[in-house]
Amino acid sequence: MPELRKDPILGRWVIISTERGRRPSDFSHEERRSSGGFCPLCEGNEDKTPPEVLAFRANGGPPNTPGWSLRVVPNKFPALRIEGELNREGDGVYDKMNGVGAHEVVIETPLHHETLTSLPLKAVEDVLRAYRARIVDLMGDRRFQYVIVFKNHGPAAGASLEHSHSQLIALPIVPKTVREELNGAKEYFEYKDRCVFCDIIAQELKQKKRIISENDRFVSIAPFASSFPFEAWILPKAHHGNFALMEPFHFSEAAQILQDTLQRMDQVLVDPPYNYIIHSAPFGGADGEYYHWHLEILPKLTRMAGFEWGTGFFINPTPPEEAAAYLREAR
Amino acid sequence: MPELRKDPILGRWVIISTERGRRPSDFSHEERRSSGGFCPLCEGNEDKTPPEVLAFRANGGPPNTPGWSLRVVPNKFPALRIEGELNREGDGVYDKMNGVGAHEVVIETPLHHETLTSLPLKAVEDVLRAYRARIVDLMGDRRFQYVIVFKNHGPAAGASLEHSHSQLIALPIVPKTVREELNGAKEYFEYKDRCVFCDIIAQELKQKKRIISENDRFVSIAPFASSFPFEAWILPKAHHGNFALMEPFHFSEAAQILQDTLQRMDQVLVDPPYNYIIHSAPFGGADGEYYHWHLEILPKLTRMAGFEWGTGFFINPTPPEEAAAYLREAR
Repeated sequence: MPELRKDPILGRWVIISTERGRRPSDFSHEERRSSGGFCPLCEGNEDKTPPEVLAFRANGGPPNTPGWSLRVVPNKFPALRIEGELNREGDGVYDKMNGVGAHEVVIETPLHHETLTSLPLKAVEDVLRAYRARIVDLMGDRRFQYVIVFKNHGPAAGASLEHSHSQLIALPIVPKTVREELNGAKEYFEYKDRCVFCDIIAQELKQKKRIISENDRFVSIAPFASSFPFEAWILPKAHHGNFALMEPFHFSEAAQILQDTLQRMDQVLVDPPYNYIIHSAPFGGADGEYYHWHLEILPKLTRMAGFEWGTGFFINPTPPEEAAAYLREAR
Repeated sequence: MPELRKDPILGRWVIISTERGRRPSDFSHEERRSSGGFCPLCEGNEDKTPPEVLAFRANGGPPNTPGWSLRVVPNKFPALRIEGELNREGDGVYDKMNGVGAHEVVIETPLHHETLTSLPLKAVEDVLRAYRARIVDLMGDRRFQYVIVFKNHGPAAGASLEHSHSQLIALPIVPKTVREELNGAKEYFEYKDRCVFCDIIAQELKQKKRIISENDRFVSIAPFASSFPFEAWILPKAHHGNFALMEPFHFSEAAQILQDTLQRMDQVLVDPPYNYIIHSAPFGGADGEYYHWHLEILPKLTRMAGFEWGTGFFINPTPPEEAAAYLREAR
């Protein structure tokens, strides 16, 4: 069973995944891992993944057989285990609990070489719908407090499989960064009686210096204090706290701006490695009043070095205004 | 002039280094940059760096000429500028100030292929002494609140030059991670009337599960909640809040355990890329009562991916107890 351990100074939790138990020799060829060969996510290899928990099959058919356009399966090498209780315990100055959680993989297409920029818009919309369906299902488990949705694209962004996919992890705690964002948004709200994200959107739409793209319901911006070159945030223009509570008829516009922003990055940066993460208020509770869900796209063009690790202080060599201009003028 | 910009939600500052101004095409060959060819840090190339601010020359001789064993020079491409005032200003919801600070490079050896593991112990001691001398000097500038000392070793850890060096950055603010550590240590002290690091050291010396190495005055441990595989912290056994106030006669033991720990990593992991960062209480103030300086060594064997970026929650595939056993048994 993996362990959740708490840093006694920072209060930050870490997953120590004892079962993966990597030894020194396991790391030496990390960078050179081949991406060719057999792919467990391709159509026809359904028996090489754990049984699916969700799939879209336009023409029906039995589970775990070909004929799907999207599948969600438990991760074969999960960071956390779905079985068991948390069993919180202390050991002197230290605190730990069992690594209970869910770790799922969203296989976005049956075809090995398609990506979110090449797929039809409907397929991107289905990816967002799959996220929502899985979040709603996982939040029914009372052991979980938060579900994080993220995508790693390209080896430099941490993707270990080439086939287009994203991941969900359900956690027994609200993670530190999420709590800090909630606290920051709450403080602003208490001071101004307004949502900080709504104020950011209003200022960006007025100044137009950092807009990348927009449609009726969403806007894509290069954030004022971007940590990474060509970072982009996609936000609903109207106030919505929780991704999983998005109106069903908003999904196509959300998919459109996501695909459009990724296509602009592809054109300007030539298939850059990136992570994206959905930032959303936790399910239930009153956080949705002052928090505003959004999707952060973080291209991985530079490496984090000692300064960033030591300070949490990023150095970004590309001003967001310039990044936005490049991306706005693409296509 | 670079800008310091504040994230309006997280309160985190970012350096937007406008002068480096990297365009999309500048990123495409990032990973393949050659490390061969001319090296501005080698002996004989003193005129290829800005004039030195400190140098050790056992046999004397004029500045900026050969004959040195260690040099400190301003960074030729600084993240922050030494000239000017902060000029704090707002723009609607946003806050910024001028990127005023100092950015220096400690050239640890005149020889291109030496490293902290191959140099004589005296040279490693001189590196620590140079850090101290520069911190003390920089803290005389009232615009600065904190000096961070760090080292990037290997391209995967963000080193852009192969020649062994480390860096100092003096900042006009106390960075977020440092403030969080100070707050965490202060809370513990207020609750227990003891330093959390002293308690950690006592427990580790008793349990002996995560000790890597020790000498009379220092101990090297694999921290209980390590974020990275084979992470190591070096701490003075007795309570000392501030690195720059270390007793002069402690430097040789500090150098010994640093070199010993890095040599063990070299043997177990075969010249791993790593960052190290000195964590110290700010200069002046009362933080030294509850904070305990230490040096964190972070091998870069895995890549940070979307999950870590979105949550601040790390997945570490090697239990610290196993890492410590490998490192303890090395040599």
